[in-house]
Amino acid sequence: MGFIEVIKLASVKSNSLVCVGLDTDPSKLPGHLVPEDNSVLNFNKAIIHATEDLVCAYKPNSAFYEALGSRGIETLKETCKAVPPDIPVILDIKRGDIGTSASHYATYAYDIIGADAVTVNPYMGFDAVKPFLREDKCVFVLCLTSNPSAKDFQLLDQGSAKMYERIAEAALKWSQEGEIGLVVGATQPEKMMRIREIIGDMPVLVPGVGAQGGDVESVIKECGGVSGSTIVNSARAILYASDGHDFSFAARESLLALRNEINSYRDLKE
Amino acid sequence: MGFIEVIKLASVKSNSLVCVGLDTDPSKLPGHLVPEDNSVLNFNKAIIHATEDLVCAYKPNSAFYEALGSRGIETLKETCKAVPPDIPVILDIKRGDIGTSASHYATYAYDIIGADAVTVNPYMGFDAVKPFLREDKCVFVLCLTSNPSAKDFQLLDQGSAKMYERIAEAALKWSQEGEIGLVVGATQPEKMMRIREIIGDMPVLVPGVGAQGGDVESVIKECGGVSGSTIVNSARAILYASDGHDFSFAARESLLALRNEINSYRDLKE
Repeated sequence: MGFIEVIKLASVKSNSLVCVGLDTDPSKLPGHLVPEDNSVLNFNKAIIHATEDLVCAYKPNSAFYEALGSRGIETLKETCKAVPPDIPVILDIKRGDIGTSASHYATYAYDIIGADAVTVNPYMGFDAVKPFLREDKCVFVLCLTSNPSAKDFQLLDQGSAKMYERIAEAALKWSQEGEIGLVVGATQPEKMMRIREIIGDMPVLVPGVGAQGGDVESVIKECGGVSGSTIVNSARAILYASDGHDFSFAARESLLALRNEINSYRDLKE
Repeated sequence: MGFIEVIKLASVKSNSLVCVGLDTDPSKLPGHLVPEDNSVLNFNKAIIHATEDLVCAYKPNSAFYEALGSRGIETLKETCKAVPPDIPVILDIKRGDIGTSASHYATYAYDIIGADAVTVNPYMGFDAVKPFLREDKCVFVLCLTSNPSAKDFQLLDQGSAKMYERIAEAALKWSQEGEIGLVVGATQPEKMMRIREIIGDMPVLVPGVGAQGGDVESVIKECGGVSGSTIVNSARAILYASDGHDFSFAARESLLALRNEINSYRDLKE
């Protein structure tokens, strides 16, 4: 079964478009976990256990684990193993390199860490994307990102279209060779409808709601509310909803509120 | 002392513009090393020992080590420790992510691995570059890459300039906030002179000679032959010059030939 079918099933089963970003920062963990040896892993397992019936996917960002050295890589691997097998894991690595190196990054993401999908930077063109295309895996190509300086290059005019539109057109073409999705930041909802026009129902991973200021109503209105096609990522607002012993309960409450808010706008569209 | 000064001194001392790419692939090692536990590290140490008086820098590509899991991270760290302190290490990571994540990648590269410089992907704009700027460190921004599909986006017209020219202009601006270099593939020498017009004597890291087909004469002619300003990377042609017991001797011979060829064109310019 391909990734897109798996995430669609997970989204329908949980009635949720929410993906929890497992961007776990040791300096932000509840105080009672800090002295423990495997505090990041224990934290992640508790978050997964408290949220797994309410999500369509999990998305750890590799940077947070790499900063912990070789032990961080083991923690990331164990975190992925703790996710139930019917919920896909998108490993946020944003890699982009020539063929040989990209193949090694694919080995890292899929074979070492055990991810079901990755994020990839398209600046080097299709050579840098192709090694990540594998049966049952999916590649989310950065299109329009949620950070302020996304405008530096992504919004430049390329003749009749902007750079991010060129990327969306290319991704659609590349999807003939494997499963491809796009990353489109929640902070730019007015451009989402244009991207949807280009790519149809391809999966769109939407970071940037919550801490980064993206507006949920606009995201659903512009990107759509179809299971497996719109994936709304939230990390900080869920992970750090409480810094006390109730952190996993608070994470579940925060996730539930976001899921229900999203679903209220999905209902309006029916 | 800043990175640019360090690499300039190393380049003058070795009379060499060559950077050895430590992209060590366990499947390509000499047969007698394979059964050993730490064959990649032993191989790297032998290569460094045989070449350290003839290089201006080393550049391991992180992908090759990440594909080996947590042990690969330890191997990469130990490899960097084996480089003499007066020779800088450029860690080829091609990362690019929003501020928080980019800070964690900087921790990985500088504090965990011990690198002196990194390569970074500029697609997300300055937010994704800034966290890598630190005293005594340098950031090499991907401008024009050596792979065939570099043309997919890097050569697109942006009004009066191509995408890669916009990146070069931006990098020049960013260099007011820290040490910045560019990555410009050897396979596109005709565009190097244009890039030099934009950036002046900023360091340019040039991959793609040898296995990827870049021509050494054109590189020196277009990019210049100034110590610390042009850095020519070669990996496969040096690392795998022989698959026998003489591999480190053969690596030295291959490196020496490349250094001398480069220097013959530098002499012509004087």
